[in-house]
Amino acid sequence: MDKTKKSMLSLKWEDGNLVILDQTKLPMETEYILLETVEDVWDAIFKLKVRGAPAIGIAAAYGLYISVRASKAQSFEEFYEELRNNEDYLASSRPTAVNLFWALKRMEKRALSSKEKNMGEIKEDLLQEAHNIRQEDEQMCKAIGENLLTLLKDEMTVLTHCNAGGLATAKYGTALAPVFLAKDKGWNIKVFADETRPLLQGARLTAWELMQYGIDVTLICDNMAAHVMSKGWIDAVITGCDRVAANGDAANKIGTYGLAVLAKAHDIPFYIAAPSSTIDIDTSDGEDIVIEERHGDEICCGFGRRTAPKGVKVYNPAFDVTPCHLITAIVTEKGILTPPYSEAIKEILLKQV
Amino acid sequence: MDKTKKSMLSLKWEDGNLVILDQTKLPMETEYILLETVEDVWDAIFKLKVRGAPAIGIAAAYGLYISVRASKAQSFEEFYEELRNNEDYLASSRPTAVNLFWALKRMEKRALSSKEKNMGEIKEDLLQEAHNIRQEDEQMCKAIGENLLTLLKDEMTVLTHCNAGGLATAKYGTALAPVFLAKDKGWNIKVFADETRPLLQGARLTAWELMQYGIDVTLICDNMAAHVMSKGWIDAVITGCDRVAANGDAANKIGTYGLAVLAKAHDIPFYIAAPSSTIDIDTSDGEDIVIEERHGDEICCGFGRRTAPKGVKVYNPAFDVTPCHLITAIVTEKGILTPPYSEAIKEILLKQV
Repeated sequence: MDKTKKSMLSLKWEDGNLVILDQTKLPMETEYILLETVEDVWDAIFKLKVRGAPAIGIAAAYGLYISVRASKAQSFEEFYEELRNNEDYLASSRPTAVNLFWALKRMEKRALSSKEKNMGEIKEDLLQEAHNIRQEDEQMCKAIGENLLTLLKDEMTVLTHCNAGGLATAKYGTALAPVFLAKDKGWNIKVFADETRPLLQGARLTAWELMQYGIDVTLICDNMAAHVMSKGWIDAVITGCDRVAANGDAANKIGTYGLAVLAKAHDIPFYIAAPSSTIDIDTSDGEDIVIEERHGDEICCGFGRRTAPKGVKVYNPAFDVTPCHLITAIVTEKGILTPPYSEAIKEILLKQV
Repeated sequence: MDKTKKSMLSLKWEDGNLVILDQTKLPMETEYILLETVEDVWDAIFKLKVRGAPAIGIAAAYGLYISVRASKAQSFEEFYEELRNNEDYLASSRPTAVNLFWALKRMEKRALSSKEKNMGEIKEDLLQEAHNIRQEDEQMCKAIGENLLTLLKDEMTVLTHCNAGGLATAKYGTALAPVFLAKDKGWNIKVFADETRPLLQGARLTAWELMQYGIDVTLICDNMAAHVMSKGWIDAVITGCDRVAANGDAANKIGTYGLAVLAKAHDIPFYIAAPSSTIDIDTSDGEDIVIEERHGDEICCGFGRRTAPKGVKVYNPAFDVTPCHLITAIVTEKGILTPPYSEAIKEILLKQV
């Protein structure tokens, strides 16, 4: 293996233990920590040591297995009650993380489907299910990356926003997946990373994980993207996505919409990397997506000192919506969607991988 | 006077002394400091306690007077040599500030034109010239503000970038001048202020000085401007300007160009506030303007601690160029310029105020 390429996994299952990269220490310290108890896992999710919807779901799945692996339960009923209590406990670590509930529910279902087996086998099945969730996420990210890669060429430069990288998933990430895969096949794709105010995920996480893998990354402030585009330095913009509406409007980290407008003005393709699970057919369009507003302190005193007047009025939306007409393609693990999105989305949701 | 309106002057001449607002302490402390010696003035300019091209020029003019007010020179030649030495000394405080040299040169010329007078009268003339420079700047800013105000209406909301306010000038500022003047006439113009990465002049200075004057200001991160525009909340974008080329292309703080593209996409007028002295007829267009690149640490460790990986590649342009076709009007103290700018600029430069 190329020693200059370090794939920094957000979490690993090592010698029967869950080991996670403590993302609160990044980019200054690279510290993997052992999570030995369900309380350790709860704490890691709560304190954002592990973050990104897929990575949280995977950590919770392993956490649920850890919570019952030493169970002394004599009957399935007793075991199941124990499991359900720990499931509720883990679900309380990040109450708005849909992926967390989904992963825990899937683990519970597996237990139920194994109820006729003996205790040791049920526990083995649960561990296997956590492995499955992790592997499926890795495969999905890889598929998104491979699909995106068909839209890119060697020596291209892409611009990305926030962190839709391996740190948020089992491996590869979504928007960054093609960049890692390109590196593996010997291509040289360069990246401009928006620092992504207010929480600087681009500076702290994206720049860091690309550097670890030996990828040529340049950090800029969000307000420099237009200038960089005008220089002709950007061949494509690729971002992740939190939710895609039925018409193709896409909600993602604040700043994504502005990038899409700028990309259009500079004739640069704008791609959204979206697991098909983020397509929400019940949301007809972007108007229906409620934008979370967060505390102004994230803007006024985010990194060790106050940088705005006390008492200043602040508007801090966490997301924005990019209307479908600005999106060149929505790239899922099942294929590449292009306009008109309403039809493409209906089609892909019927398709089996 | 309305006690809720505090006009925070960047500098004042008080009881025979130069008093400046220490801008390095903003927004946490409002501290006016007395500059008693030419060394004090040099230090204040060097350490950015006073900043903004016009304000620096005014401080230097007073500094030059202060440097010779106690002169024991017996002849004009002796006095002039002393003055020239202090002029060179002050010019070394911010070697790239064109306005600084301009103000010092103007003071020197005044001394030369007063050479037949007695020592006391020459000193008086120098103080008067410093007052003139300050008053002319204030009048110019007011005229820009009045011209901009004809483009606005009561209850409008403007978006601004960086700090083109009173803190950078004698009073009123350029881009912010209409907002202060509107307040004086009882209008209620609201402002969205981009924080303006990397140095956060919008958060630290613009938000602060508008709050002091009782103006409704909302702070946002730079990447939120597009979202705020899409909400229909912005009636006009107004920014300052560092240099206008002969064709109307305008260089200003990094991020201005992106705002202009976004304003166009949302059908929002985009105004540049520009003293006619910033029009550089020898620069044919924006292509000729060299963009200063600054140190990456401004991006990587600007908030009190490091927020990006050590060794990360950073691109940190200080300015960008907005092409004239994106500018709705360039507003000077001599009048409002509209396309085609090449002609409008030639005309205005011939016009006397």
